Amino acid sequence: MRPSGRAPDEMRALSFETKFTIHAEGSVLVSFGNTKVLCTASVEEKVPPFLRGKGEGWVTGEYSMLPRATHTRGSREAAKGKQSGRTQEIQRLIGRSLRSVVDMKKLGERQIVLDCDVIQADGGTRTASISGAWVALRLAIDGLMAKGLITEDPMPRRVAAVSCGICDGVPVLDLDYIEDSSADADANFVLIEGGHIAEVQATAEGATYDEEGLLRLLRLARIGCDRIFAAQAEAVAK
Amino acid sequence: MRPSGRAPDEMRALSFETKFTIHAEGSVLVSFGNTKVLCTASVEEKVPPFLRGKGEGWVTGEYSMLPRATHTRGSREAAKGKQSGRTQEIQRLIGRSLRSVVDMKKLGERQIVLDCDVIQADGGTRTASISGAWVALRLAIDGLMAKGLITEDPMPRRVAAVSCGICDGVPVLDLDYIEDSSADADANFVLIEGGHIAEVQATAEGATYDEEGLLRLLRLARIGCDRIFAAQAEAVAK
Amino acid sequence: MRPSGRAPDEMRALSFETKFTIHAEGSVLVSFGNTKVLCTASVEEKVPPFLRGKGEGWVTGEYSMLPRATHTRGSREAAKGKQSGRTQEIQRLIGRSLRSVVDMKKLGERQIVLDCDVIQADGGTRTASISGAWVALRLAIDGLMAKGLITEDPMPRRVAAVSCGICDGVPVLDLDYIEDSSADADANFVLIEGGHIAEVQATAEGATYDEEGLLRLLRLARIGCDRIFAAQAEAVAK
Amino acid sequence: MRPSGRAPDEMRALSFETKFTIHAEGSVLVSFGNTKVLCTASVEEKVPPFLRGKGEGWVTGEYSMLPRATHTRGSREAAKGKQSGRTQEIQRLIGRSLRSVVDMKKLGERQIVLDCDVIQADGGTRTASISGAWVALRLAIDGLMAKGLITEDPMPRRVAAVSCGICDGVPVLDLDYIEDSSADADANFVLIEGGHIAEVQATAEGATYDEEGLLRLLRLARIGCDRIFAAQAEAVAK
Amino acid sequence: MRPSGRAPDEMRALSFETKFTIHAEGSVLVSFGNTKVLCTASVEEKVPPFLRGKGEGWVTGEYSMLPRATHTRGSREAAKGKQSGRTQEIQRLIGRSLRSVVDMKKLGERQIVLDCDVIQADGGTRTASISGAWVALRLAIDGLMAKGLITEDPMPRRVAAVSCGICDGVPVLDLDYIEDSSADADANFVLIEGGHIAEVQATAEGATYDEEGLLRLLRLARIGCDRIFAAQAEAVAK
Amino acid sequence: MRPSGRAPDEMRALSFETKFTIHAEGSVLVSFGNTKVLCTASVEEKVPPFLRGKGEGWVTGEYSMLPRATHTRGSREAAKGKQSGRTQEIQRLIGRSLRSVVDMKKLGERQIVLDCDVIQADGGTRTASISGAWVALRLAIDGLMAKGLITEDPMPRRVAAVSCGICDGVPVLDLDYIEDSSADADANFVLIEGGHIAEVQATAEGATYDEEGLLRLLRLARIGCDRIFAAQAEAVAK
Repeated sequence: MRPSGRAPDEMRALSFETKFTIHAEGSVLVSFGNTKVLCTASVEEKVPPFLRGKGEGWVTGEYSMLPRATHTRGSREAAKGKQSGRTQEIQRLIGRSLRSVVDMKKLGERQIVLDCDVIQADGGTRTASISGAWVALRLAIDGLMAKGLITEDPMPRRVAAVSCGICDGVPVLDLDYIEDSSADADANFVLIEGGHIAEVQATAEGATYDEEGLLRLLRLARIGCDRIFAAQAEAVAK
Repeated sequence: MRPSGRAPDEMRALSFETKFTIHAEGSVLVSFGNTKVLCTASVEEKVPPFLRGKGEGWVTGEYSMLPRATHTRGSREAAKGKQSGRTQEIQRLIGRSLRSVVDMKKLGERQIVLDCDVIQADGGTRTASISGAWVALRLAIDGLMAKGLITEDPMPRRVAAVSCGICDGVPVLDLDYIEDSSADADANFVLIEGGHIAEVQATAEGATYDEEGLLRLLRLARIGCDRIFAAQAEAVAK
Repeated sequence: MRPSGRAPDEMRALSFETKFTIHAEGSVLVSFGNTKVLCTASVEEKVPPFLRGKGEGWVTGEYSMLPRATHTRGSREAAKGKQSGRTQEIQRLIGRSLRSVVDMKKLGERQIVLDCDVIQADGGTRTASISGAWVALRLAIDGLMAKGLITEDPMPRRVAAVSCGICDGVPVLDLDYIEDSSADADANFVLIEGGHIAEVQATAEGATYDEEGLLRLLRLARIGCDRIFAAQAEAVAK
Repeated sequence: MRPSGRAPDEMRALSFETKFTIHAEGSVLVSFGNTKVLCTASVEEKVPPFLRGKGEGWVTGEYSMLPRATHTRGSREAAKGKQSGRTQEIQRLIGRSLRSVVDMKKLGERQIVLDCDVIQADGGTRTASISGAWVALRLAIDGLMAKGLITEDPMPRRVAAVSCGICDGVPVLDLDYIEDSSADADANFVLIEGGHIAEVQATAEGATYDEEGLLRLLRLARIGCDRIFAAQAEAVAK
Repeated sequence: MRPSGRAPDEMRALSFETKFTIHAEGSVLVSFGNTKVLCTASVEEKVPPFLRGKGEGWVTGEYSMLPRATHTRGSREAAKGKQSGRTQEIQRLIGRSLRSVVDMKKLGERQIVLDCDVIQADGGTRTASISGAWVALRLAIDGLMAKGLITEDPMPRRVAAVSCGICDGVPVLDLDYIEDSSADADANFVLIEGGHIAEVQATAEGATYDEEGLLRLLRLARIGCDRIFAAQAEAVAK
Repeated sequence: MRPSGRAPDEMRALSFETKFTIHAEGSVLVSFGNTKVLCTASVEEKVPPFLRGKGEGWVTGEYSMLPRATHTRGSREAAKGKQSGRTQEIQRLIGRSLRSVVDMKKLGERQIVLDCDVIQADGGTRTASISGAWVALRLAIDGLMAKGLITEDPMPRRVAAVSCGICDGVPVLDLDYIEDSSADADANFVLIEGGHIAEVQATAEGATYDEEGLLRLLRLARIGCDRIFAAQAEAVAK
C-alpha cells in the first residue's frame, strides 16, 4: 500500500490552470497533487550569441523553488549569490526536453524562455515543470501563429515527464515527497507523444536495479505520460 | 480622471487569500488589484548571531520578483549572482516595518522570516508585501500561541503600507503601474493601527513637492491603510 | 540637554574644503562635525546604455565607508565581494537627490559620477554625502561651462540634506553618532533651495511618531538646510 | 563504418596508470583513447556537517577540465568565478556513482574526495572519470585497511561507466568526440559489477529513441563495462 | 633632467600627518609629493584561525584606491565584486613588509590590521603605503604599551619602502606617475633600518637590466629610505 | 647538507616532455624534480580590447594548482568562486616574464595564452611554470612561422626562472618544498639568456638579507638558469 493510498500505476490529481498570470505570452499553474509550479513562456525577439544571424530560434528553461515551497525553509539562491548544482541540472533538463519537440528553423530567430517557479513542493517538481512548460510554450507559440509571426507550427508534438520509482520493492508511478525520500531507486522519464523517449535519468543511490526494473519503470512512465498528454491537450484547447 | 477610472482616494480591489500554500507557518496571497504577492512566514528556532543568548527574537524579510511578474521578463537574480539594490532596499523596508509592531522579548529567542515573492506586478509591490507579511506573521504567531510556545501576544497591533503619489497635479491613492510610471512624486507610507507612522519614503525624482503636498499624501495613506487594516482583520479571523 | 551640548535646532560645525584632491573635475571634503566625507565628481563623455543616443545626460552616485572610519573596524566590501544593502540604499539615494536638481537635456550626453567616500564617521554620513556631492557637482558643471561644453546651466538650484530625530521625546537637528544610536525615530530630509522636498526617509524602528512629529522634524530640517545652502554657496564662490 | 575504424561494440584503448602523482592516497591517470583524466582520492578525517557524529563516512567528487584539454581553449572556471552547470552536473554524477558501491558505516566517519581533472578530452570524460575514480578510491581504501583504520572492506564491488550512442542509426560503444558531436542520441551508463544499474542518463536532443533503442545501448554498455572491470582489477592488483 | 626638475637621487616632499582620523588606534596621512595615502592601524583582540591558542599575534594589510584617486576614474572594486590581482598583490606585500619587523610573540595573541586607502595617486602608492603603515603601527603599539597590554616592544626597528627606476637610461629615486609610465625598469625596495633588505620587487617589462643596474637602484633606495626613516622617527616623536 | 643531499648550487633533475597533450599549439610537461607543471600555449586570433586595431599582439598567463597537487588537498578555486591572491600574483608574473622576451609587433594582432597547471607540487611551481611556458610558447610560435602567419621571429631569446634561498645561513639553488618551508629568505629570479634580469622577487618574511646575500642568490640563479636554457634548447630542437 502506498502512503497516499494510490494504486502503483495511479497518478496524483493533475491540473493545468492556464492564464494564471497576465503578462507572459504563455502562463500556467501546473499541479501534480500538492506539487504546484508556475510555468511561464516569455517570447524574446533575439537569440543567444551563438545563434545570431542563423535564422534559427532557441528554447531555454530556468527553474527555482520559492524558499518556503518545502517543509523547512531553504535559503534563497539570489541571496547566496549562486544557483545550486541541483537547480542548474534541472533547468538544463527542462531546456533539453522542450527543445526535443521544437523545430528551431520554423520558430524563427527568436528565443522563448520557460520559467518554472515552484510555489509548493511535494515531489516531482522537475517533471511537473517540464509538463507545465509544454503548455506555456504551446500557448506562446499559438499566440505567435495567431499574429502571423510564425506560419508553420514548430511544435507538432507534445512532451511530458513523470517520475517513477521502486518503493519497498514495488515499481510505482508519480512519487510524492514521502515516497521520494525512501525510494530504493528513482527515475525521471521525459516522453514524447507517440512513444519515443526524449530523456531518461535513472538513479539508484541507495540500491540499484536491473534491466527488468528499468523496463517496468518505463512502462509506468508511459501510463503516466499518456494521462498528462490528455490533460495538456484539454488545457490548451480551452 | 485616473487611468483605471478610480476616484483619487479609491483603492484597488483588495484580497488576502490565507493558507495559499501548505508548508509555511503563515501563508497568504495578497492582491492589490493585479499586484499579487505570496507572503509566507517561517518560524526558525534560532536567531542571528548578534542576538544569541539574549532571550530576544528577530523578524526579517526577503523579497523577490518572479522573472515574468512584469510586462517584460527581468533576469533572475539567482542567475545573475546578486540581488539588486532595489531588492535589498525593499527587503530591508519589509523587515523594519514588521519589527516596528513586534515586541522581541515576548517573541522569545526565535526568528520569523517573511518571504515576499511577487507572482504578478502592477505597481505597489513593496506595500502589498508589507501588508501581506503582517497577515502571514499574525498566522505564524497565532500558531506559536496555540502551541503554548508564546504566552503573551508579541504583536498587539497591525501594520499596513500603501503607496500614494501626485499624478497630473492630483494626489491619488494606491498607484498602479501606469500611474507609477508617470507620477510627479511617489511616496510609500507604513502606518500602524491607531494612527502612528512607522516609515515614510517620499521621493520626487521628476518634480518635488512642498509640505502641504506631503500632508495630503499622508491623509490619503490613512484612508488606504484603514481599509487594509479592516481586510487584514477579516482575513486572520477566518 | 544634548550630549554635545548643542541646542535642539543647532547644527554641528560645517565646512566644505574644496579642491581637496587634484584629479577630479570637482572635489570637496565636507565636514559635519566629526563626520568627514570626500566627495568627487567625475565627468565621463558617455552615458549608460539605456540613454545612448537620446541627447540626455545622467548623474549617479557611489558611496563607501573606509574600514576604519568608525569606532570599530568594518570589513572592506571589496574584500567581501559585495556591497551591503545599506551601501546600495545610500548610493541610490545620493543619485536620486542630485538628479532632482539637474536638467538632463541641458547637461548633454555625458555622465557625472559622484563618489562619496567616508573618511571618518560620526552620524549623518549620507546627508553629508548629498550636501557635499552638490558642491563637487557644481564645480564640475562650472568647469564644463567654462570650457564651453555646456551653454546653459543645467543645475540652477542647490540641494542639501540633513538628518533629524526624536531623542528622549525632543526633536533635534543633525544627529551625531551617540544621538543616532539612541533616537526613538530618525528621518533624513533632502530639500531643495526654495522650500521644496526632494526626498523624505523617516523611519521609526524603536518607536513611531505621528503627523505632528513628522512636521516638527521637517521644520528643523528647513533650518538645517538653510545653513547648508549658505555654506555651499560660499564654498563654490571661492 | 565508425570514423575511428572501430567495430560498433569496440572500445578504445583503455589504460589505468596508477600512482601517477605521489601525494594523494589514491592516484591514477585513466585513458580511454585520447581522453585522459587524472583521478585522485584524498582521505580527510572529517565529514560534512550533516553527517557529524553519526559514525558514517562520505564520498564526493569534483570535476574540472584544464582550459586547453579541448580543441579550442575554454575559459577557466576559477577565473570566471563559477562552475558551469555542466561541471556541477558531472561532479554530482561522479559522487552518486561511487557512493552506490560504498558502505558508509564501514568507511567510518571520514570523507574521501575524488578529484577528476581532465588533462585531455576526446569524448566520454565523465564516464572515464567515474571509471578512474573507482581505481583511486580502491587504492585509498586499501591504504586505510593496510593501516588498520578500516577493518571490513566498505567497497566489495566495482563500478564503471561508459557512454553509448546512436550514430547514423547504428548503436555504438564508447563514443569519441567526433561521434559524440554528431550522435542522434547519447547515453551514459553507470553499471555495477554483477549486472546492476547504478545510473542511466539517456538524452536525445536531436532525435529520440524507443524502448528497443534504449535496450540495445544498455547491452553495449554491459560489454564495455565488463572490459573496464577487468582493466580496473588488473590496475589495482599491481 | 627629470620631469619634476628633481635630481636623480632626490625624493619628493615627504610628510606624515599623524592622528588624521580619530577612531583608529594609529592613523596617519602619508604624502610622497602628490601621492597621499591614509594609513590606519586597527587593533583586534583576536587572531586568524591558524594562530588561535598559540600565543602569537598577526599583522596584515589591506589596500584600496578611491575611484577618483587617479587621472581617470577607476571602477570601484566593491561594485565589481572582486579585488584586482594588483590590489591583492599590493596588500600581500604590505602585510609581509610590516611582519618582517614585528616579533609576533611579543605582540601577544592579537591582530593589527593596516588599512591603506589611497586618497590621491601620483606614483609609488604601494611604497608610500608601507612607509605610512609603519607609522600607524608604531602609534598603535605605543598605545598598547602605554595601556600595559604589551610589556616589551615587539617592533624595535623601522621599515620603509621606496620605488626606483631607470628612466632614459638614468637610475632615479621615487618615481612619480609620469616617470613610472615611461620607465624602462621599475623596482620597489622594502628596507629595514640598519641596512637589511626585507623585499625587492624589480620588474622590467619593457627593457631589462643587469646586475650593476640592480645594485645602482638598491643604492638609491638606501638614500631614500634613510630620509623616510628620519621622517617616520620625527612623526611618531610628536 | 641539504635535505635532498644536493650541493648548494645543484638543481633537481630537470625535464621538458614536449607534446604532452595533443590539442594545444604548444604543450610541455616540465619537471623540476617532483614539481610537475603542464604548460600549454593557445593561439587566439584576437587581442584584448585595449589592443584592438593596433597591429600588436599579446601574451598572457594563467596558473592553477590541481587540488591534490600538494601534501594535503587544497580547495578548488572554481568551487570557491575566486582565485586567491597568490594565484593572481603568480599568473601576473608569468605573463610579464614571457612578455619581456616577445616583440609584440612581430607577433601580429593575436594573443597567446599560457596555461600553467600544476599536476604535482614540491616547491618552485612558479619558476617551473615560467620555464615551461617559454617552451610551450616557442612551439606555438614555431607553428605560426611554419604556417607563414609570422615572418620574423618575435622571440629571439629565451627566458627562464629559478628560485633560490638562504637555508641555515647557506645560499642554495632550486629549493624543494622542505627547504622552501624553512628558508630564512627566498627569492625568485627571472633571467634572460645573455645575462639580463627580467624580474627579481626577493622576500624575507622570517629573516632579512643584505646586499651581499642578494648578489650571492643572483649568482646561483645564473647557474640554474644556464642549465634551464640548455634544457629548453634541447627540448624544442626535438
